Amino acid sequence: MSKPMFVVATSNAGKLREFQAILGDAFVLRGLAEFDPVVFPDEGEDYEANAIAKARTAADALRLPAIADDSGLEVDGLGGAPGPLSARYGGPGLDDRGRLLHLLEALSGMRGSARRARFVCVAAWASPGGSVRVERGECEGCILTAPRGDSGFGYDPVFEVEGLGRAMAELLEEEKNRISHRGRALAALRASLTQPVETRS
Amino acid sequence: MSKPMFVVATSNAGKLREFQAILGDAFVLRGLAEFDPVVFPDEGEDYEANAIAKARTAADALRLPAIADDSGLEVDGLGGAPGPLSARYGGPGLDDRGRLLHLLEALSGMRGSARRARFVCVAAWASPGGSVRVERGECEGCILTAPRGDSGFGYDPVFEVEGLGRAMAELLEEEKNRISHRGRALAALRASLTQPVETRS
Repeated sequence: MSKPMFVVATSNAGKLREFQAILGDAFVLRGLAEFDPVVFPDEGEDYEANAIAKARTAADALRLPAIADDSGLEVDGLGGAPGPLSARYGGPGLDDRGRLLHLLEALSGMRGSARRARFVCVAAWASPGGSVRVERGECEGCILTAPRGDSGFGYDPVFEVEGLGRAMAELLEEEKNRISHRGRALAALRASLTQPVETRS
Repeated sequence: MSKPMFVVATSNAGKLREFQAILGDAFVLRGLAEFDPVVFPDEGEDYEANAIAKARTAADALRLPAIADDSGLEVDGLGGAPGPLSARYGGPGLDDRGRLLHLLEALSGMRGSARRARFVCVAAWASPGGSVRVERGECEGCILTAPRGDSGFGYDPVFEVEGLGRAMAELLEEEKNRISHRGRALAALRASLTQPVETRS
């Protein structure tokens, strides 16, 4: 039997690489670049709704099953912000580095539990027929006072992973994909698509 | 291995019976009446979002996996209305019978393709851990000029099923569950929860 094929509904090259590394041996993944442009709806403040909307929009537009994620960084000292708005934090015009510096500035003077944070990822799969599957992954840690490491993307250089004492951007790719929010959400999505649901009662 | 157990997040007795008839041999289903009251969010105009919100709310409140549906009747001569608003059509204070008569009045004078309609059901399963599965079912037909039959509930007496020449409310329960929108959505949800995803490419 041939591997199921899914479109990955992201224009973020770093994310696409992570999807490929985590799901590539079980599924054939195709990037949006292979197709006519898809117009995605504006994102709201709910990871689950955002991830489903992206996967559903791609599945409906391309008539192919599609997967997408919505991720964010929740910082305790900021009341859980920037959360689902993480990719737009600090306003338009900032790149990954600009947003990360904006975050460090917002947290300047904060110590200890105020710097506790978690990465959250919700991954969704949608088919043209109306089927949807969603899984969630989290990774606990704290916000460093200065960037460290240069792998990964987004806020990876300022996020120290709980129990490891290293920034997410200091991890090898395989190491990151085993413990990261996106790695966990995608591994669960992979299981959801290949195994019967567990008895959870 | 024991059967997986799910809470059915509906207070509609007719729906609960249908869930039981279609899923009861594969899963243990428990009604909301067995638990402390759950406060559900207001419904919007999107079947998928409504069904997920109901299942997620019950799963989070009761810390148990839960299933729910959102259903509606789409009439071509009414531009697809009442759709996700079907259960509230005609305003508050109407019962099933009142809503059905309200629909017949709205369609008085309309003939042929204007009376074409379909029942739509989106069924969702959610676990406390953040997993979600969604499936969709539809049933084509047309709106009769007067009610017929007395089984089923909702708009069943005025909906003639395409190809059968009988109202949904004239079908035996087993017959209805094989071809109805809810029967199809729940059968797909059952397959989603017990079988690996098909290769759809």
